[in-house]
Amino acid sequence: MNKINIAILGATGLVGQQFINILTDHPFFSIRVLTASEKNSGKLYKDAVNWKAGNMIPEPIHLKKIDKFSISLFKKKKIKIVFSALPSSIALEYETELRNNGFYVFSNASTFRMDKDVPIIIPEVNPDHLQLIELQKKKYSGFILTNPNCSTTGIVSVLKPLMDFGLESVYISTYQSISGGGLNGVSSFDILNNIIPFIANEEQKIEVESKKILSTISGDVLKTPDFKIISNCCRVPILYSHLISMIINLEEDVSKEIIEKKLSGFSNIPKELKLYSAPKTPLMILQERDRPQPSIDFPIPYDKKSGMVIKLGRLEKIGKTLKLFILFNNTIRGAAGTSVLNAELALKSGLIGDTK
Amino acid sequence: MNKINIAILGATGLVGQQFINILTDHPFFSIRVLTASEKNSGKLYKDAVNWKAGNMIPEPIHLKKIDKFSISLFKKKKIKIVFSALPSSIALEYETELRNNGFYVFSNASTFRMDKDVPIIIPEVNPDHLQLIELQKKKYSGFILTNPNCSTTGIVSVLKPLMDFGLESVYISTYQSISGGGLNGVSSFDILNNIIPFIANEEQKIEVESKKILSTISGDVLKTPDFKIISNCCRVPILYSHLISMIINLEEDVSKEIIEKKLSGFSNIPKELKLYSAPKTPLMILQERDRPQPSIDFPIPYDKKSGMVIKLGRLEKIGKTLKLFILFNNTIRGAAGTSVLNAELALKSGLIGDTK
Amino acid sequence: MNKINIAILGATGLVGQQFINILTDHPFFSIRVLTASEKNSGKLYKDAVNWKAGNMIPEPIHLKKIDKFSISLFKKKKIKIVFSALPSSIALEYETELRNNGFYVFSNASTFRMDKDVPIIIPEVNPDHLQLIELQKKKYSGFILTNPNCSTTGIVSVLKPLMDFGLESVYISTYQSISGGGLNGVSSFDILNNIIPFIANEEQKIEVESKKILSTISGDVLKTPDFKIISNCCRVPILYSHLISMIINLEEDVSKEIIEKKLSGFSNIPKELKLYSAPKTPLMILQERDRPQPSIDFPIPYDKKSGMVIKLGRLEKIGKTLKLFILFNNTIRGAAGTSVLNAELALKSGLIGDTK
Amino acid sequence: MNKINIAILGATGLVGQQFINILTDHPFFSIRVLTASEKNSGKLYKDAVNWKAGNMIPEPIHLKKIDKFSISLFKKKKIKIVFSALPSSIALEYETELRNNGFYVFSNASTFRMDKDVPIIIPEVNPDHLQLIELQKKKYSGFILTNPNCSTTGIVSVLKPLMDFGLESVYISTYQSISGGGLNGVSSFDILNNIIPFIANEEQKIEVESKKILSTISGDVLKTPDFKIISNCCRVPILYSHLISMIINLEEDVSKEIIEKKLSGFSNIPKELKLYSAPKTPLMILQERDRPQPSIDFPIPYDKKSGMVIKLGRLEKIGKTLKLFILFNNTIRGAAGTSVLNAELALKSGLIGDTK
Repeated sequence: MNKINIAILGATGLVGQQFINILTDHPFFSIRVLTASEKNSGKLYKDAVNWKAGNMIPEPIHLKKIDKFSISLFKKKKIKIVFSALPSSIALEYETELRNNGFYVFSNASTFRMDKDVPIIIPEVNPDHLQLIELQKKKYSGFILTNPNCSTTGIVSVLKPLMDFGLESVYISTYQSISGGGLNGVSSFDILNNIIPFIANEEQKIEVESKKILSTISGDVLKTPDFKIISNCCRVPILYSHLISMIINLEEDVSKEIIEKKLSGFSNIPKELKLYSAPKTPLMILQERDRPQPSIDFPIPYDKKSGMVIKLGRLEKIGKTLKLFILFNNTIRGAAGTSVLNAELALKSGLIGDTK
Repeated sequence: MNKINIAILGATGLVGQQFINILTDHPFFSIRVLTASEKNSGKLYKDAVNWKAGNMIPEPIHLKKIDKFSISLFKKKKIKIVFSALPSSIALEYETELRNNGFYVFSNASTFRMDKDVPIIIPEVNPDHLQLIELQKKKYSGFILTNPNCSTTGIVSVLKPLMDFGLESVYISTYQSISGGGLNGVSSFDILNNIIPFIANEEQKIEVESKKILSTISGDVLKTPDFKIISNCCRVPILYSHLISMIINLEEDVSKEIIEKKLSGFSNIPKELKLYSAPKTPLMILQERDRPQPSIDFPIPYDKKSGMVIKLGRLEKIGKTLKLFILFNNTIRGAAGTSVLNAELALKSGLIGDTK
Repeated sequence: MNKINIAILGATGLVGQQFINILTDHPFFSIRVLTASEKNSGKLYKDAVNWKAGNMIPEPIHLKKIDKFSISLFKKKKIKIVFSALPSSIALEYETELRNNGFYVFSNASTFRMDKDVPIIIPEVNPDHLQLIELQKKKYSGFILTNPNCSTTGIVSVLKPLMDFGLESVYISTYQSISGGGLNGVSSFDILNNIIPFIANEEQKIEVESKKILSTISGDVLKTPDFKIISNCCRVPILYSHLISMIINLEEDVSKEIIEKKLSGFSNIPKELKLYSAPKTPLMILQERDRPQPSIDFPIPYDKKSGMVIKLGRLEKIGKTLKLFILFNNTIRGAAGTSVLNAELALKSGLIGDTK
Repeated sequence: MNKINIAILGATGLVGQQFINILTDHPFFSIRVLTASEKNSGKLYKDAVNWKAGNMIPEPIHLKKIDKFSISLFKKKKIKIVFSALPSSIALEYETELRNNGFYVFSNASTFRMDKDVPIIIPEVNPDHLQLIELQKKKYSGFILTNPNCSTTGIVSVLKPLMDFGLESVYISTYQSISGGGLNGVSSFDILNNIIPFIANEEQKIEVESKKILSTISGDVLKTPDFKIISNCCRVPILYSHLISMIINLEEDVSKEIIEKKLSGFSNIPKELKLYSAPKTPLMILQERDRPQPSIDFPIPYDKKSGMVIKLGRLEKIGKTLKLFILFNNTIRGAAGTSVLNAELALKSGLIGDTK
């Protein structure tokens, strides 16, 4: 099988670096074009990047030139799939243009997430929302498929299996690492020996994106579920991974054993698809009394395999209420990794097949 | 007025150091005896302590000798009040003995907090629980009066005024500084670049102590209120102060303005008592979008004045649900400061008056 | 006595904030104008600043408007002295213009430091270099007087008294806090759980500035001393203060006692001047085996009094070689504080007396 | 070839954990016995350890029982080599007993390092000191072979190749991570947002051990070299790896190119031995202007391969003076890794051959 040519937009940022990590040696995709901010166009990747994703920049990318964003270049290089790690302001223009020109955009930007015909997908959670792509394909030659905000990704992966027991209300507090703010997003002076109980728009995103992702779909219509979800978000002085405190009121009173079994066995990816980047157990339940911990559970934050697992610990049941913590790699599972998994899902589902 | 002689147990720990800060130059109390662990008996305070509470150890204490715990010494030195910063295991023996010998013990230890005749008091919240002291006085010559666990102190100070609007349920997640673990409690290897989602017994303490403090008292009987309170607790890599995320469901739907007015005007200390260490506004409401923050709001963690204020920010109202953050100095408001305030309350209420 | 009107350039940065701290309630100077970057002109100070210098912005400044840099405004407001916390790139234009228009500029910028007629002064070290001001006054109506780079300030304050014993060579390694990089200078991602063994131009500055400051002056000619000085500089993950490791080879073999006496008694400020901001003992020698430490020795990094003292510890003598550590507040002693002390020196020396 | 049975003493500490990492799947050695402190005897390894050396405890060790130290057990299990990560106080008794009973002890403890007949060896630096083992073998049935203090390991690896150009004097300042203090050695309260310019005995160790290792040996007599070495040591708030600032005065004035070539090509391990754990290039020279950095150069602190390389950067030559930084993994290259490499050296040199 010939590999599909792909481009990465925003390739020098933290999510861009994880895209490179994950897509180097990927069996189906081949990195052909990298773009970054204006000032880096024309530079070698190694000279433009402040590399944080491991010991070494992967060999073929090391000396690759960074290109200026250009539809004609993308066409010339026979790019079919574009992975976007663009800031949301820039994503509006570029992703629109790409979609109009027949490219398949897998985007981390928040720009289009709440659009009616753009799905927010996590393959383990709501692969059926892929139907919305048909709506886009009718209007445009390409499509945009988004993955959720990093925190939302972890949260809905726990909520989805619990919906079988009836979700009444969900109370969330986050402990988000500085990597979520990007390479230069958080000044050391603001965060060293400090906690910042504010992340712009994060709480809104958690609330609206979770509802959209957990919607049922019939035809092209999403039906939003009816539980309450409220969150308080904080930036904490750790480098990688997001820890999230969740307190969940269920409608049914089922045993802790049943809940654990439900959670640890969960995945909605159709078995026959066998997605390459999908972990066997998306939700791993820890029994230790003081886990999960960032430094123990994600010691190597650019390990693409382990970076797709969400660790869940301190699960307790008090009546119909569950309390627990989840921890996950925000730049892999919460960003680049889920985006690549979405591309694998689209590919196996036949949505990429029609070459231009 | 002659000052009352006091002793500090556990004087070299972090809470002990704050006791020294607060009680040096106190108008009513005079530090006469300091005790610490066995190995420090006989040493000068300056040689025994790893001082973290400011530029300098206060002058008179600097060269004070540390004594071995001894009832006869306490009697000889005419100690009347004993402030205890003992670990709970040791507190059982020492505080029992002190009470049996007629001393008034103001204790930070958790040991006796849930005893039927021992009140847990925050003067602004439940000064009426002082009645329980009479129960003790009947049985023993002295008494033990406790202040709550650090996190509980902040939490109930917000919940008490809100009870007027009906408390339905409270969901809490904490961001607790390493100072809560004591000088050597948290290894740097465990917490640097990490978060630990576990603090032994903390969640239980928050739940049971909050209910006890918020109980109504009639005669000697406490009646526990009927709301739900669930918490998830974490240790975070900051030195001082505890940040707490609170999501509260009220029974009534009152305006945000009424809630803010209620909170910022709150204190149950009888006006005529004018307690020396009581801040004018125990709950200070911040309007900035990203506050409270440890490094901005408690930059000087041993300032005894500012250390008694609880800062509350990011208050939002969604239907009958409130969400907010509080931040407070865990070793002053959450420990030594409230303990001293309790002693002032007892003194003004005539409970200390009967000299032995 | 009427206070002298002063302006602060770059008033929202970290050094600017310390200027405000130090000059509020100063007996001789009165803050009349504040400038900051273009985008903040017209804003209230409180709305433009990310205040890090204590509990509260001092009252009169809180609501002060930030002005656009303008010579005519400065004249209108009868400004005589301008304190500059400008980045060196901007300082070139603005400070030149100010000097040409008769203002007395006390600058933290490196721009003019190595100019032949511009002295770099620390009042305790080389007040005699004030003579160079006369050279400037002949050419321009105003003058520029600089204080050294932060690290240099600490280093030469130790080297100056030791020159009496003959300096042969000096080997330096620095542990510099992130505050030296400014409010947004160091990304948290680069420094959390990391050390950066590179600070642009710092090593060169230490070497050339030290030599200039320690020069003898005769007439207008500086004669550079003949010792060797080599440094290695690092950024470390602490918020405030610079720790510096110094190993010094002396020419003479004098006793440790004589050296300690020389260091702790040192100051070249003429006694009759009695400068307001000068500490009694600029160099304080600590005898503890593990000091100085940032968190113990400068716990309140915006205390203007204590912030002028350089703490020296772990002094050992091995033959003619000394080894020691110094620690000082880089934004006060290493920047704003020394700048203000220079203005006090110039004032007392009669250089400010001639009003325009 | 049958693997040689080995024991690890102090197996739960940080160095002990690295021993387990390195010796699991080692081609020549097989872990048979683990000991730890008294209180852990009899426990499963997984229940006794606070594992920090990677994602998972290696499989066979996970459920291995921790034994009490016992010569008879060691004999019964046919242990030949003992790797010691014991604290120096305990090492005195245990290592003596082991040597007297014919075991070959490879020790990280400082206890015996300065003994006349005990060599301190780094295979790349002074494999010829292995001769001293013969002295021991005459006296005892077994032997003790030590590796140096962590900082010394890095330092002498740079000094040895430079000796060809004549060492005149060496000035050192260290930036040592908290892992050097062991799992519970440094309290978070002491090091968070702080630097501690004191590590007990470290500076003395650097000075005396370096001289011993760099000695020439003739017969059984070590002849100490005649350069000056002085150091200032600090603990800094990073988890892993030691950064060291070195300023070195050479006797000869050779070009930077020659020096770089000498350093990067350096290793004294006899080519024919081909030691399994020896890196191809023990000293790797970095050309980037801001390297080496802990978070970039040793992102995975339990990678046994990369953990044996010493990275050297910012090399500058000023006359006959060199200045540079080195960075290395203190628990692998600076401890367990070099110890295992010594055992491989001894094995290949025929010192282990005589089975008991």
